[in-house]
Amino acid sequence: MSAPHMDPDEFRRAGHAVVDWIADYWTTLGQRPVTSADPPGALAAALPAAPPTAGEPVEAVLADLDALVTPRLTHWQHPGFFGYFPANTSGPSVLGDLVSSGLGVQGMLWATAPACTELETVMLDWLAGLLDLPQRFRSHTRGGGVIQDSASSATLVATLAALHRASGGRWRDHGVDRRYRAYTSTHGHSSIEKAARIAGLGGEGVRAVEVDPDTQAMRPDALRAAIEADRAAGDLPAIVVATIGTTSSTAVDPLPQIGAICAEYGIWLHVDAAYAGAAAVCPELRWSHAGLEYADSYCFDPHKWLLTGFDCDAFWVADRSELIEALTVMPEFLRNAATESGAVIDYRDWQVPLGRRFRALKLWFVLRWYGVEGLRAHIRRGVALAARFAERVRADDRFELAAPHPFSLVCFRLRVGAELDAVNADLLARVNGTGRVHLTHTRVGDRYTLRLAVGSPQTAEAHVDEAWRLLDEAATDLLGKG
Amino acid sequence: MSAPHMDPDEFRRAGHAVVDWIADYWTTLGQRPVTSADPPGALAAALPAAPPTAGEPVEAVLADLDALVTPRLTHWQHPGFFGYFPANTSGPSVLGDLVSSGLGVQGMLWATAPACTELETVMLDWLAGLLDLPQRFRSHTRGGGVIQDSASSATLVATLAALHRASGGRWRDHGVDRRYRAYTSTHGHSSIEKAARIAGLGGEGVRAVEVDPDTQAMRPDALRAAIEADRAAGDLPAIVVATIGTTSSTAVDPLPQIGAICAEYGIWLHVDAAYAGAAAVCPELRWSHAGLEYADSYCFDPHKWLLTGFDCDAFWVADRSELIEALTVMPEFLRNAATESGAVIDYRDWQVPLGRRFRALKLWFVLRWYGVEGLRAHIRRGVALAARFAERVRADDRFELAAPHPFSLVCFRLRVGAELDAVNADLLARVNGTGRVHLTHTRVGDRYTLRLAVGSPQTAEAHVDEAWRLLDEAATDLLGKG
Repeated sequence: MSAPHMDPDEFRRAGHAVVDWIADYWTTLGQRPVTSADPPGALAAALPAAPPTAGEPVEAVLADLDALVTPRLTHWQHPGFFGYFPANTSGPSVLGDLVSSGLGVQGMLWATAPACTELETVMLDWLAGLLDLPQRFRSHTRGGGVIQDSASSATLVATLAALHRASGGRWRDHGVDRRYRAYTSTHGHSSIEKAARIAGLGGEGVRAVEVDPDTQAMRPDALRAAIEADRAAGDLPAIVVATIGTTSSTAVDPLPQIGAICAEYGIWLHVDAAYAGAAAVCPELRWSHAGLEYADSYCFDPHKWLLTGFDCDAFWVADRSELIEALTVMPEFLRNAATESGAVIDYRDWQVPLGRRFRALKLWFVLRWYGVEGLRAHIRRGVALAARFAERVRADDRFELAAPHPFSLVCFRLRVGAELDAVNADLLARVNGTGRVHLTHTRVGDRYTLRLAVGSPQTAEAHVDEAWRLLDEAATDLLGKG
Repeated sequence: MSAPHMDPDEFRRAGHAVVDWIADYWTTLGQRPVTSADPPGALAAALPAAPPTAGEPVEAVLADLDALVTPRLTHWQHPGFFGYFPANTSGPSVLGDLVSSGLGVQGMLWATAPACTELETVMLDWLAGLLDLPQRFRSHTRGGGVIQDSASSATLVATLAALHRASGGRWRDHGVDRRYRAYTSTHGHSSIEKAARIAGLGGEGVRAVEVDPDTQAMRPDALRAAIEADRAAGDLPAIVVATIGTTSSTAVDPLPQIGAICAEYGIWLHVDAAYAGAAAVCPELRWSHAGLEYADSYCFDPHKWLLTGFDCDAFWVADRSELIEALTVMPEFLRNAATESGAVIDYRDWQVPLGRRFRALKLWFVLRWYGVEGLRAHIRRGVALAARFAERVRADDRFELAAPHPFSLVCFRLRVGAELDAVNADLLARVNGTGRVHLTHTRVGDRYTLRLAVGSPQTAEAHVDEAWRLLDEAATDLLGKG
């Protein structure tokens, strides 16, 4: 009746080997191609069809990791990775997450792991202070913060709390029994439409509000017009999602005006700062958060630009009772004295899943190892590297900047005529095809636009300069010398 | 402009220290109290109000982890932890997760980390084979598997796909514009009501179907009656959630009869085997999955009873196109050639969030390190330990078993008269108050019932025997000698 488990001594030995494997991976990262050239199915075809009958040693798995898996990855921590938004991590984050894995506790209720809940509350208060967020989000008020897996889930729970409020509590029992509307700009993230669909509003429940062509930011007058039109049609405006740092171009929606409109109509204002929120650790970048005092909820992703591994979205509400009322269900098997006392936070009522990992540990490790000054240095470095790259673009007449670059993302393209989209797509394919860098694209002003987002801790001036050199060479191949 | 990051050598040194910390924690776990006696707020009060200005070494954080955090945890991996359902982990799982943290890749699209997607597809096929699930869930058919964070999220996405199907595709654009109904037994998990609420059906959208008083399993005749009543009222039955192993008592709903009813009415059948699904790695326990060929979707949690750390819910659908149609949104910034070729899986369309960790790695490490025989030994050991405990209960006239115990959960209580609930609650408080074990409770047949769930890899006969000894002593204090 014995089941052999890995004993602590074997874990110690194999654990050191895995730590060394990661250290070696990070050391050699810059020499690897950023992306894989293998076709779909290459890894699947190389693996057996079933697990082994008898167990194998960790070394056998690590050997296959090297031979089969890592060559078929996109290396997000690579110094030449400039795609999407960064999903950077760091040594301290990996170690904090390792402790969490080793403890293996469940933080669904305060009672099921008190320190998991309390450290999370304190870390969210630390972050709120670090970003200088409004007092109403701090846990000593009616508000408070929680870790969500992603900004997608933050938008979803904000939408649910907004429906609860807009319906006067009716939604909880009766569901979506009239037409509610959500608003975001045409550059709001796709997760806003997804949240509305999940919540039962349908894709048509989302109004895409026009942006200003110069700033790519939401036009408050267009928001007001959309709200008025919906009200006139008998629909109920429930939530506005404003963005600090849109995915396409890091545009900043004008929160002071948008917030005033939400206050006037009694609409929930959720602010999605998934990527750019981290910038607010630097006082000189806090202009981007002006007007946040209007927000009912706010989130940013430490897992994007604050050196904390995925998943870690920091989400705050100004009135936690609305969120909890929207989401709580209490079965007998979860009843406990601490919950009934009302003196504790049960974070399961702040999110979609019931279970929760001890994710606050990685934040704790990151915030303490870097300190405030270390985090500011990281953000400033990203902004400076992006500015350095933008300067190259600006100085080359063949190229143009497609949008302002207030943070660490630069949007740019070749100035060409009728074939602009195709030529720029070709440019992107050529530089990515070198395997030295990886950039992605979007559309700004409905034109194909390349994006270079800086964020990996390993990225230095030399890597940004190499990206520019590759673009310069590819442009010359495509267009002739500039 | 320099930002100091943890270099690979420092990571190697600190990483070894953290691995050793975990090995020491596991070695000393049995000597710790299972739960903390500290009142709410004790940890929060012991922490500073803000992060440090300058960074601190990892050792400083580990010292505070020992002094402040671990004493205030419920130790889920403790050999005396018998609460809720197990959330067991293992050395191989921790190591696989560590590799995932170190790689720091994002698997939202195939193109953003091909090996992350392909290893996940293969691991879900391995698991499907391991549990002998129907062929229709394998990736070479129209179906396939994906990792969700939890069974809660699996139920939610199943509900959304069911609404998409029930509406004939109308739901995607128009949302919940009529009344849909979901069905589960009175012992279905609370996440089913939560999913219905999130999806906009409201709490009243869920019909709680009566159970058989002997088996605690859903009554097919009652299900049929509820469906007929709703149809007569003009409401649309969308989904039935049947359970293999309910949370209260591990009851198994009669899938063959329920499945036939769902097929007759064209209703989506989701099967929630969050805890007990793992039992199907043992051929002698596969009776519990009879009728699964009717299911449109199925999930179980390797993070409960299959030695894989949270979060890891394995979720399968018989027709992946329905799920993808329900959930996909394609913004420009995610467009890529691989997606447009139709030759790849983009798992972001199978879940709520956009981002994804490389969670298949921990499954790969677990399945290879244990092998099929190691996993079967683990399950058989849990079942045998539960049977051993149940034998003690059965042999003591003061106690009774409150339900069958087909897996590793035993439901029991003191046989007392009018004060049954209070006396049993007192019994639970007394044994948990020793700090040696942790059990939780539920209600079965509307009576207070204690639950002892076996699952920690460290739990041996001695720990189960100690739990019984403490219960015996507390019962003697409460009632006199048996």
